[in-house]
Amino acid sequence: MTLLALTGGVGGAKLALGFAKVLPPEEVVFVVNTGDDFEHLGLHISPDVDTLTYTLAEVADPVAGWGRKDETWRFMAALERFGGETWFRLGDADLALHLHRRTLLGLGLSLTAATREIAARLGVEHSILPMSDDPVRTRVLSPDGPLAFQHYFVRDRCAPKAVGFEFAGAEAASVNPAIPFESLTAIVICPSNPFVSVDPILAVNGMRDALLATGAPIVAVSPIVGGRAIKGPTAKMMRELGIPATTVEVAKHYAGLVSHFVVDEVDACARTKVAALGMQTVTLQTVMSSTDDRVQLARAVLEFIR
Amino acid sequence: MTLLALTGGVGGAKLALGFAKVLPPEEVVFVVNTGDDFEHLGLHISPDVDTLTYTLAEVADPVAGWGRKDETWRFMAALERFGGETWFRLGDADLALHLHRRTLLGLGLSLTAATREIAARLGVEHSILPMSDDPVRTRVLSPDGPLAFQHYFVRDRCAPKAVGFEFAGAEAASVNPAIPFESLTAIVICPSNPFVSVDPILAVNGMRDALLATGAPIVAVSPIVGGRAIKGPTAKMMRELGIPATTVEVAKHYAGLVSHFVVDEVDACARTKVAALGMQTVTLQTVMSSTDDRVQLARAVLEFIR
Repeated sequence: MTLLALTGGVGGAKLALGFAKVLPPEEVVFVVNTGDDFEHLGLHISPDVDTLTYTLAEVADPVAGWGRKDETWRFMAALERFGGETWFRLGDADLALHLHRRTLLGLGLSLTAATREIAARLGVEHSILPMSDDPVRTRVLSPDGPLAFQHYFVRDRCAPKAVGFEFAGAEAASVNPAIPFESLTAIVICPSNPFVSVDPILAVNGMRDALLATGAPIVAVSPIVGGRAIKGPTAKMMRELGIPATTVEVAKHYAGLVSHFVVDEVDACARTKVAALGMQTVTLQTVMSSTDDRVQLARAVLEFIR
Repeated sequence: MTLLALTGGVGGAKLALGFAKVLPPEEVVFVVNTGDDFEHLGLHISPDVDTLTYTLAEVADPVAGWGRKDETWRFMAALERFGGETWFRLGDADLALHLHRRTLLGLGLSLTAATREIAARLGVEHSILPMSDDPVRTRVLSPDGPLAFQHYFVRDRCAPKAVGFEFAGAEAASVNPAIPFESLTAIVICPSNPFVSVDPILAVNGMRDALLATGAPIVAVSPIVGGRAIKGPTAKMMRELGIPATTVEVAKHYAGLVSHFVVDEVDACARTKVAALGMQTVTLQTVMSSTDDRVQLARAVLEFIR
């Protein structure tokens, strides 16, 4: 089989690791949100690509979910003394990735090629594909105006009210040509934030149609469990948008795209409503605390598709 | 008084620290070689400016003479794993200076303004002035062709034979307009390498004439003591250029510019020959091992000028 998994950062990367553990590199490809990307201190930061890279390399910080484990913060402390921008935390080892990527991009490599080179150096054999090599920038629309995603997410700690989102550049961006649409046997939308992790991927010009044209089953795993987000601002955003923070609403959000939908055991009663949207459903334990949980969920999702 | 001290990195910075200890900020200005500057990993590295900044801030590594004390090297280790260029050692805390300078230069600040801002943040009150805000790039001419200075100095560890030097851009560069030529009462050439630390400063278009036009005494402190360089490749270069590695030859090198010349006690017998060049001479203990040595030599040099 060839599985395509769409993912954002932390939450999605957990299930992605599960797939990487149960499928060989030739049977799964990860397509990653780059709407979070931004220029910072003259570097190109690609938070979701980096989180997935570190996660698959098993060097990710298991507590934070982003960055590297056993990280040190000498650079940040020194930068603070200079009065530099320290709201975005860059660890000493993490910095090497960012400076090296800058070098690679400066040599003319695409983000895809730079990502491949970096991941290979960390021993990652699975393909990590940015959704596009063209810039797409997610903005969170708030009552005080639009906010660049990292300003909303990190600097302002998701405090501003979200009234909408835009994905600047998505219309003009080309789908990553390395995505093997023609050979896909299944597509999984990992349990990432639908609004700011998955929607930017789907917003890339032609992506949605290309996914549907494969005819492959498209499975979504709900990031909302028992009315709460496992991590991140998904539930808060839904409330602010006037949408109940339920797994059913996540399914509605993906209606017209998704054919299969995974609800968590605690939301088992929602299956009927999701099924009414024309989706096949299954109830699984979706909260992943350990690597075993990730592997088990990956296997169960594959089972569901088959 | 207003003293102008011309300096390169390690050797010169030692005496510069002595002057900073005995003269208040309004009485001494440091003019620093930027011929060593280069672009590396997308950063503007200014080795001599940084060494002087760290030295005056008293955060310099006392053993290496460059970089910061108590430095850590997580970034370099991670960069090595990516296959990045690791021949130029950038410590985790040192990196903050380089990334912050990039930010400042990106905002349109001159190298002088960026240097002032950075030094102030480290508590340095004395003026550190790059010789020019325009790029000057020292190249070491070797039998195999020209080498960018840091490639010669760091990457190749001064192994190639030096047959000459060039200071690309010096003709087109303007002398730093912040240098207070009109009010100088004395000029000191610190014990830096004459060929690759001091000559680039003197090569900046108009610098030499501007120094002479002040009419102030110009004192040089020999970096060659007992036929050897205290640190660095000065003696090796002199031998390769077919010049005896003696303090007399250093004095000859500065003939026409320097009015006063400091020889080390071990070279006391050279005084007659130096005096024959028309220079006033003094014999001092010039090898600086401790901070006290730096202060003592600074005082003695000031005494000599007065």
